[in-house]
Order: sequence, then C-alpha cells, then structure tokens
Amino acid sequence: MSDPKSVITLLHGAGGAYMHNLIKEYFLQLYDGFGEVGLNVLDDAAVINGIVLTTDSYTVRPIFFKGGDIGKLSVSGTVNDISMMGGDPIALSLAVVIEEGFPKSDLAKIVESIKRTAEDAGVHIVTGDTKVMERGSLDKIVINTSGIGVASDALEYNFKVLSRTRSVKYKWLVPMNIKDGDKIIVSGTIGDHAIAILSSREGIEFESNVVSDVAPLNKMIKAVLEVGGVADAKDPTRGGLADLLNDWADKSGLGIYIRESEIPVKEEVSSAVEFLGLDLLELGNEGKAVLAVSPEMARDVLDALHKTPWGKDATIIGDVRKDMEGVILETVVGGKRLVTRPTGDPVPRIC
Amino acid sequence: MSDPKSVITLLHGAGGAYMHNLIKEYFLQLYDGFGEVGLNVLDDAAVINGIVLTTDSYTVRPIFFKGGDIGKLSVSGTVNDISMMGGDPIALSLAVVIEEGFPKSDLAKIVESIKRTAEDAGVHIVTGDTKVMERGSLDKIVINTSGIGVASDALEYNFKVLSRTRSVKYKWLVPMNIKDGDKIIVSGTIGDHAIAILSSREGIEFESNVVSDVAPLNKMIKAVLEVGGVADAKDPTRGGLADLLNDWADKSGLGIYIRESEIPVKEEVSSAVEFLGLDLLELGNEGKAVLAVSPEMARDVLDALHKTPWGKDATIIGDVRKDMEGVILETVVGGKRLVTRPTGDPVPRIC
Repeated sequence: MSDPKSVITLLHGAGGAYMHNLIKEYFLQLYDGFGEVGLNVLDDAAVINGIVLTTDSYTVRPIFFKGGDIGKLSVSGTVNDISMMGGDPIALSLAVVIEEGFPKSDLAKIVESIKRTAEDAGVHIVTGDTKVMERGSLDKIVINTSGIGVASDALEYNFKVLSRTRSVKYKWLVPMNIKDGDKIIVSGTIGDHAIAILSSREGIEFESNVVSDVAPLNKMIKAVLEVGGVADAKDPTRGGLADLLNDWADKSGLGIYIRESEIPVKEEVSSAVEFLGLDLLELGNEGKAVLAVSPEMARDVLDALHKTPWGKDATIIGDVRKDMEGVILETVVGGKRLVTRPTGDPVPRIC
Repeated sequence: MSDPKSVITLLHGAGGAYMHNLIKEYFLQLYDGFGEVGLNVLDDAAVINGIVLTTDSYTVRPIFFKGGDIGKLSVSGTVNDISMMGGDPIALSLAVVIEEGFPKSDLAKIVESIKRTAEDAGVHIVTGDTKVMERGSLDKIVINTSGIGVASDALEYNFKVLSRTRSVKYKWLVPMNIKDGDKIIVSGTIGDHAIAILSSREGIEFESNVVSDVAPLNKMIKAVLEVGGVADAKDPTRGGLADLLNDWADKSGLGIYIRESEIPVKEEVSSAVEFLGLDLLELGNEGKAVLAVSPEMARDVLDALHKTPWGKDATIIGDVRKDMEGVILETVVGGKRLVTRPTGDPVPRIC
C-alpha cells in the first residue's frame, strides 16, 4: 500500500478517520465564514440563504447490485443528504462521466432507475452534464448528483417542539442541537447495503440473499419532523454507525452510549458479518437514518417511524450522556467498549 | 472505434451532434415539466423557484496546463454556467473523485487554485464530497462542481431594457429571447483554451505560448446586464462557436449570419489552427462569452465589455436574421458556408 502521508490511498475515501483528516487538512481551508450551516460543520449538506445544497459522486461497484443500482443510489443518496439536514428536496442535477465503450443498454437501465427513484421521492432532475473518458481511464461510470432543498413546514414545527425543552440555535438538523439525555434511534436494520454490495461482487466467496436498503428517505424524515423533537438526523453511509456516532460525539461534545443487543440487524447480515470477520458498526447503509430525539418525544417519533414503509424496524439503541466521552458500546454479554472512527474500509466502493 | 449505435464513444462527450443526440435520446425523458427554465431547454443551467442550479464534471487533461489547472477550471466553468443564465453565483459544491496514489502535493495545488478562483469570483465553496477509486480505475482526478445563483438587480434591469423593444417571456438569458436583428458579440479571442490544452499535452508536436483563457466571467456578465438589452449569453466551451450558434439557431428558430473576418483570434492560435488542420469555430473556450444583444444596445454593451479585464477584445461578429436558416459564415474571401454542429472532437478532454 502507498504511503498515506504523501499520496491519496483508498482509506482516504473510506469515510473514517483518514477521510476526516484529509478533509480537515485540504478542504476545510475553503471555508470562508459563509452560510447558515457552512462548510466548517462538515455535515451532509450546507445551508445558504435558506437553501440546502449538497453533492455526492457515486462510484459504487458493481453498478447493478441486489436491491438497486448506481442510478437509484445516486438519487437516493443526495435526496437523503438534503433530508438529513431537515430540508425538503426539490431538484437535483445529474452529471455523468462515462467510459468509452460503455453499453448504451446499461445507460438506459440506469436512467430508467434514476427516473423511477426521482418519481418515488417526488424530486425533479432539472439539469445535467455528460462527459466521456477514454477506454481504460475510467472504470465504467461515475455519477454526481447535487441537489437543493428548502425548509418545510414540518421542519419549522419540529423546531417549535424541540425549543420547548431546550435552547436551539439551529432549526436545521445539526449535531450542535444534540443534548444530554437525547435518545438515539436507528430507523431499521443495519449493514444490509454493504453486505448486498459484497455478495453482488464477482470473486467474493459467499452467497447471500440480502438486498440493499437503498431508498430515498425524505418522506420518512418528514413524518418524524411532523411529530417533532428531532435534534439531528444522519444517514450511516460510509463508515457506518461507528463513524456517524463519533461525529455526533465530537461535534456535540457529549458521550453516546449504545447497547449492542438493541441494534436491529437481519440474521443473514449478522452471519455474513461473523463469517467475513467484519464490524457491523462500520458497515455502510443507504436507506437508514439515525436520529437524536428529545427523550419526551422519542416514543412518538418511534411510533411514527413504524408507520412508514422505511422505518418498520426502528429501535432506540441508546442515549446521549454528558458524563461520558466518545461512543461507548455495551456488548451483548454486558461488557463495554469504546467505539472509534473506522481506520480501515470493510467494504470499499459502496457508494 | 466502437459502434456509436450500441456503446458510448468519445464523440458522445464532444459537445457536438453526437452528444446532443445522446442527451435527447437518454436524458431528456427525465424532464417532468418542472422549472421556470427546465431540463427540456438544455441550457447552461436550470431555474427552479427563482434559483439557478447547474452542474459540471471536469475531466480535463493535463490537469495542470498553460494558464490554469483543473481547480481553476472547475470553479470558473460552473460560475460561468450560472452567469450565462443571468444568475448571480452564490455558492458551489465541490466533489472530488481521486485515483489511489494521487500525490497530495498536487491535491494541495488544486485546492489552492480553487480557493483563489472562488475568491476572485466572489463565490463560496460550501459543501463537498471525497471519493477514492482504485489505482487504474480512474485517470488521476475528476472534479464536479455544482452551484446555485439568484437573479441580480442587474438581470432585472436588463429585462426592463430588453422589454422596451420586444415582448420577452423570460427574464433569464435563454435562446427563446433572441430576435431578428440581434447583434452577435464575442467577448474576446477564440480558441485560446483548446490550443493551450493541446500544447500542454505530452507527445503533441508543436510549441505554443498561448495560455488558456479560463476565468470566471460573472463580473463581466454583470457589467453588460447593467447596460441592458442582452437577450442571451452562452460560453463557447465544448463544440465551440459552431455548436453554440447552432444551438441558438435551433432554439430561436432564426438564422445567424457571422463574418469570419470579424472573429477575434490571436495570431498564434490562428497559426496553430492552420498547422494542425483544425476548425477554429469548433475549438473550446473557458473564459469567453457570446452575447445576443438588441441592435439598439449593442454598441453600449460592447463599450461596457471593453472596460472589463475579460472583454477588451470584444467584437460584433454578426447578427440574427429571420430570412435565413442555420448558421452562415461569410468567409474572409467573401464566400458563404453553412456552419454545422461538430461531428468530431478537435481537442478531446478540454474541460
């Protein structure tokens, strides 16, 4: 492996400690003080002049996998980044970079999937860009979707409810809103996407029927905001729960305590994780949200999640504790371990 | 070369006839009727709820070239796409996809260039994304910048002036505003970027001191909108003047007549074009605008351009004529030829 001090390595794209350091060292200098939620927050999206703006490039392999494809992922991921900020997604841009020789029939399938997913989410594709790179200079296709959203009535209502029990600086869903005692909720089973991607790869020696959870979650997030009391929401993509919760602990300055026994996981995912020697908490998801919710509202939020197609397995997995530091996992057998940001990549190129 | 009927070829990324057909066949189905200026217009950007949204992925080679680099290009290109719609650029997103093994020192140079160009343009980088692809699966780096802008007072004023002499449906700068008699202005010399890129490539057998014109043009466009009477603006990037003017002729339903003798070109570019057997009209530019301006205001717009650092060589090169079809070039020797959309790519990967 190359020296991560002088060159970019795969770890820098893994969503863990190396990526965070790269971003801090190279990209954070671009922050110039602008934005209601600016670049410095390093959240799912920025908010400027009341507009949520986000971007993601998708490099997933294989491009067609169990439960989805790069098109469905491109729309879902960007819709979710807007939603996790509390924004109502309105419009997306679509920029494709294609390798010379790429089959038009595959492009047709991807565009069809983009169209269907955008319709499902109720978001509009309004502008685009097409580039082609010479054969051998790009592996098949990379898609960037960027998008904009605005504050919905649901977000304003959520802010009102949250403000009843705490002083809230941001109406947007950011880690700085998280307070001691907040309940940590995951909206469903963890690890499905990463395991589905792995088992869709050629040369991987295990079979699995797990399908990716990839889906646009804007309607689910809207449903919980209509209940109110949500301090923050984030989707556990690259770096999984481990990275997400560490991010929250860092940015809120509070500890997070979670119980392994409460984390929802499909039996087949659990077996695959054990068989492959992976850490469930580090696996990426593309159709799940983690919520920090005020304790008074946590039960109602959970009920609202259960009524949506995407949140049937939602569970409270822990809470926020000011008397702790970092992320603490209570293991199934009652032990405790510190959960750190991933420093490896259990499944590369999941998004 | 592969069969362009069944697979994507380099021509599909060239900004000419093949790309337009690909977009119409595959991407136009994503249009769902949404937007003040929607996907169906296939312009530099879309306008939704008063917000200009645009996206571009940059794959230029080499990544450092005479007069610029992929960082400067990424900011300039997207700022220009917003400006050419008449929008005032506010914020950009920045998504990088990097090949494993890419030198961090090169990344530092690119980020520094992004920062400087954003400062020059007065635009803010507010959010981002970082992905890494395995060595050999991507040639070095691809950057996507997407961005948003809003209508400025200058745009409103331009609309008012333009409305004095014609009925204008859009306040935004779109080809549907172009009318018979409009003057066609180019803001400066043509072909500099493509020739600078070519001469920066290894293995190309000619030397040249031409530097790329890559620059953010938002301040120049604002200056001409403050004069008023601009029907449309567009930057002649991939496909050059030939593609741009054909686009205008198609979308306005009018003919465009230009005089070769009036087209500003540096002597060194002209020699290179001749030496390499290229068509000047098909060469891409990254710091030039083409304007369609009402005849009453053309002289004042030209004067305003001359006062800016980017428009010193601005020239009226022709006019819009309803009694013609397509794009007609009056050659230096007085002949006439039909200028068609490019069907080849004189210089691939210029942006």
